[in-house]
Amino acid sequence: MYIHSHQIRVRYADTDQMGYVYYGNYARYYEEARSEAIRSLGLPYRELELAGIMLPITRMNIKYIGPATYDELITIRTTLTKMPDRFMHFSYEVYNEAGKLINEAETQLVFVDAQTRKMVHAPQYLVDQLAPHFAVK
Amino acid sequence: MYIHSHQIRVRYADTDQMGYVYYGNYARYYEEARSEAIRSLGLPYRELELAGIMLPITRMNIKYIGPATYDELITIRTTLTKMPDRFMHFSYEVYNEAGKLINEAETQLVFVDAQTRKMVHAPQYLVDQLAPHFAVK
Amino acid sequence: MYIHSHQIRVRYADTDQMGYVYYGNYARYYEEARSEAIRSLGLPYRELELAGIMLPITRMNIKYIGPATYDELITIRTTLTKMPDRFMHFSYEVYNEAGKLINEAETQLVFVDAQTRKMVHAPQYLVDQLAPHFAVK
Amino acid sequence: MYIHSHQIRVRYADTDQMGYVYYGNYARYYEEARSEAIRSLGLPYRELELAGIMLPITRMNIKYIGPATYDELITIRTTLTKMPDRFMHFSYEVYNEAGKLINEAETQLVFVDAQTRKMVHAPQYLVDQLAPHFAVK
Repeated sequence: MYIHSHQIRVRYADTDQMGYVYYGNYARYYEEARSEAIRSLGLPYRELELAGIMLPITRMNIKYIGPATYDELITIRTTLTKMPDRFMHFSYEVYNEAGKLINEAETQLVFVDAQTRKMVHAPQYLVDQLAPHFAVK
Repeated sequence: MYIHSHQIRVRYADTDQMGYVYYGNYARYYEEARSEAIRSLGLPYRELELAGIMLPITRMNIKYIGPATYDELITIRTTLTKMPDRFMHFSYEVYNEAGKLINEAETQLVFVDAQTRKMVHAPQYLVDQLAPHFAVK
Repeated sequence: MYIHSHQIRVRYADTDQMGYVYYGNYARYYEEARSEAIRSLGLPYRELELAGIMLPITRMNIKYIGPATYDELITIRTTLTKMPDRFMHFSYEVYNEAGKLINEAETQLVFVDAQTRKMVHAPQYLVDQLAPHFAVK
Repeated sequence: MYIHSHQIRVRYADTDQMGYVYYGNYARYYEEARSEAIRSLGLPYRELELAGIMLPITRMNIKYIGPATYDELITIRTTLTKMPDRFMHFSYEVYNEAGKLINEAETQLVFVDAQTRKMVHAPQYLVDQLAPHFAVK
């Protein structure tokens, strides 16, 4: 298991006329959170793409518990729940500035060859890099 | 049960560098689809808000099956699956221009009093309007 | 000169907590408006791209006069002001549902070869298609 | 004159199928940059709103010079060009990760009373706070 924490400032662009972050904008926050989680492992997603691997999303489930409001510094706790195989699973917990859980989500990504657009296994160097975090203690 | 069909043209703004609609942009498409579904019932969402009711999203589950690409005219089939009580449930099927199912989703919305921001029951006129569609045949 | 009119429904996603369309979201509306203007000439932008031409924006000037609000059916009047050469110039007038001018803008696009990413002249078939609209009467 | 520098990571959500940041997404970057510029002066925009002042945009001019690409850490240099009166003027220079200028813009914002939605002068405490930066040397 690998856990990473990332903070995001809510922008005016993200709000809607209810005065809350628009429900569709969390997907961008999750993207940012998991990108930084992957970067912190030394594996920027940009390099995966340069190596010919794409990671489209195949599933996303969100449970909205409470709102985030303009200018709040929210915290996203991203968990890579299991060793990637053909899929990569992330879960997210979003906390508002007061530390209250406002949002939970899961995404499933699939490894795809950028040329053939067919599913492939996780690249070996990614598996190697992640292995210590999933080792049986 | 109430089913409504709506078409949306994919815009450049919606795509990402993978050449597909960004996974987070479907939420906007679902919003558009359910708004038009509600409008077709004679109940514009704008009027609900003017009557002091808000409808924030409490859950969204998406299964991404295939991509939508730039300039495609996609079709969203929106189903109001059951009679609203304190919640309103919509399901969505998204088809690409060739008629292939590329995306399935569900959203749960909750009726909230705009003043108190507390949960309320669906307004009676909405229930009355929908009743014929959920009548036992 | 070629003028085209297009209507867009303001979505919740487009609003911000001021209760108006977020200032950055008009760029998407202009994109939609000029795409439909080009389509109405029988030249879908998608086909330009398939023919190896891209049209990135090089300038955009916007004058915001008044707000657009949720669920309004706004009208965008798009004008192709002059015959394309290496650039293509569009101007836009945005009217709210009451017919009031709320927004004026101009964009300059440049023809680019998708392979070399160098500037090129407007393709001849586009020039031919547009010629009747710019003929001296 | 007051100058502030801010860095933003380009996200997948921001790109389009050309592989560049979508031209409409820079408005969000400028918002982020000027918010942080104002915050650095000890005047969070959130507090202006709480004090009943809104700052809608009345003009935006952008000159696009080159692209920003996925995952680049771009730098925005924001300049508050003159003392606010009824308007507030910001200019922006956007640099890519290699330090190349890719984008220049200006925005004009207007002070509005949130209740009456009428134009007002800049609040005195904002003027006082900014005065040292515009003092004749």
